[in-house]
Amino acid sequence: MGQPPKITREDLERTAAALAGHAERTPLVESAELSRRFGVPVRVKCEFLQPVGAFKQRGAYTAIARLTPEQRARGIITYSSGNHGQAVAYVAKEFGARAVIVVNDTAPAIKIEGMRRHGAEIVLVSRKDRERRAHALIDREGLVLVAPYDNVDVVMGQGTCALEILQDQPETGTIITPIGGGGMLAGTCAAVAAIKPEVAVYGVEPALSPKLTAALAAGHPVPFDPVETLADGLVPTATGEITLAYIAPVIRQAITLTEDEIAAGVRFLYRSMGLKVEPSGATPVAALIAGKIAPSGPVACVLTGGNMDPAVFRRLVGSVG
Amino acid sequence: MGQPPKITREDLERTAAALAGHAERTPLVESAELSRRFGVPVRVKCEFLQPVGAFKQRGAYTAIARLTPEQRARGIITYSSGNHGQAVAYVAKEFGARAVIVVNDTAPAIKIEGMRRHGAEIVLVSRKDRERRAHALIDREGLVLVAPYDNVDVVMGQGTCALEILQDQPETGTIITPIGGGGMLAGTCAAVAAIKPEVAVYGVEPALSPKLTAALAAGHPVPFDPVETLADGLVPTATGEITLAYIAPVIRQAITLTEDEIAAGVRFLYRSMGLKVEPSGATPVAALIAGKIAPSGPVACVLTGGNMDPAVFRRLVGSVG
Repeated sequence: MGQPPKITREDLERTAAALAGHAERTPLVESAELSRRFGVPVRVKCEFLQPVGAFKQRGAYTAIARLTPEQRARGIITYSSGNHGQAVAYVAKEFGARAVIVVNDTAPAIKIEGMRRHGAEIVLVSRKDRERRAHALIDREGLVLVAPYDNVDVVMGQGTCALEILQDQPETGTIITPIGGGGMLAGTCAAVAAIKPEVAVYGVEPALSPKLTAALAAGHPVPFDPVETLADGLVPTATGEITLAYIAPVIRQAITLTEDEIAAGVRFLYRSMGLKVEPSGATPVAALIAGKIAPSGPVACVLTGGNMDPAVFRRLVGSVG
Repeated sequence: MGQPPKITREDLERTAAALAGHAERTPLVESAELSRRFGVPVRVKCEFLQPVGAFKQRGAYTAIARLTPEQRARGIITYSSGNHGQAVAYVAKEFGARAVIVVNDTAPAIKIEGMRRHGAEIVLVSRKDRERRAHALIDREGLVLVAPYDNVDVVMGQGTCALEILQDQPETGTIITPIGGGGMLAGTCAAVAAIKPEVAVYGVEPALSPKLTAALAAGHPVPFDPVETLADGLVPTATGEITLAYIAPVIRQAITLTEDEIAAGVRFLYRSMGLKVEPSGATPVAALIAGKIAPSGPVACVLTGGNMDPAVFRRLVGSVG
């Protein structure tokens, strides 16, 4: 694979302008407790406040808006463990396009319901059959694929999140994001390379499925068997090729977390900040409080999503509601 | 009217113990920005994280649990502009009791839907007919009234909120709550009198309906005509008699806010803390940022509820979702 196209600051600004009114410019919120603990301002980027409860709307809107009307008229398909599927369903509805989402049957019910609510057709399959089934449907029905992460338009859309961080907190020295397939992390790395290359970027993944750690060591994506982790949004079988090409030259370090460390992040965000963030989305803060990152300069943690089955939330934080 | 019964610290601790598992012990969250601005820690008590999205569950559970089984079997009735009705519906369902809620037709749809979702029977009436209609139904059907604020058990339940604040932040010097009928403020005043009388307590109300300001000046509840305000939870026609008896000897000051000042509180909580709080619930922080309170010692603002029609929220904060 060659290098994917360079993403410039102007590309990101143009993409962000096109997103206005279609995705939320989310708040960047300071944690008083973490700022005190680390001696630098620590802020969290509230992507769980997007209309679909996750950052995926940035990439999905960007990719679908750049299709031709003829492509959108053929219908859109994607595969997803939940949040990208909800975003594609939401955006397809905005454009009046058909949306088919191939979902692994381990996805949380709340995410599947979200897709249905926005009118998508759901195809439930086992995790390992997801991509194959999507491609079979593309061949049969002529649908257009909006891949969840390994797609330059999606990476560009996700990159607007880091653009906003660097606008709101120009003195940022560290950005921490979760990593599943790598869309958000690739967008972040591209934005940092274009705007402020000295920022230290970290990607956080479940220790049960250390795809980025393995890919950085090997120099190419390394497939993993599907696993069950609290971080249900970080379960692609491998990082993407395109995303890895944006990530590898920029990233400071990949960080792995145990399930207990991930759960502690969810609890901290609720108890200390009053925020309901899903386990995948809580991993950046979880990595900080686990002591696995020594921040250089003001920190931004991207809290990527908030869609969590209520029973899981109650169990993790010990709440009633 | 004579003095209502004194509420002791032991009363509050017993009430809080009975609430465990039925209402949330909500987080007390520090605002980095307000702490910096005022030079003392400023925290917010996240009552919008209760299962019904408002503190009312504390009082409703306390009052309904203290009814006899025979009373609960007759069915429960209340009148409400929304959040108390949702709490009564939720708790009645827990006890398997019938619930009838008389609601003013200006209540937000999201609150009325909340009551329906918990299986309550809804009677929609004009604001001024609310209490009269409830009493007619009591006479006709033998239902038992759980009054929304002028009820010692309800005041006791709401008082557990301030108990938790003083447990979590014992150095608290200032507590600020919204005031409608006065249940939360009376519970707060009772708890402060019992536990730490030197705390300065403030009650915040819409300038369009300054019921507490008028009642403190007159020495008794003063009725106001119903008004339309963003703070739809603060629309009783007067403070209660019982609540005023708890409030008057303790409160430092009643504060009134314009509609613009209330809206600024909602925006601040979203942009600076990532929290979605309804206008009534945002009034304590709104009073601080309007410069109307000079805090003495660490501050706790009670954010009483979060139930807001999405269109109102989008309009107030300029968000997409």
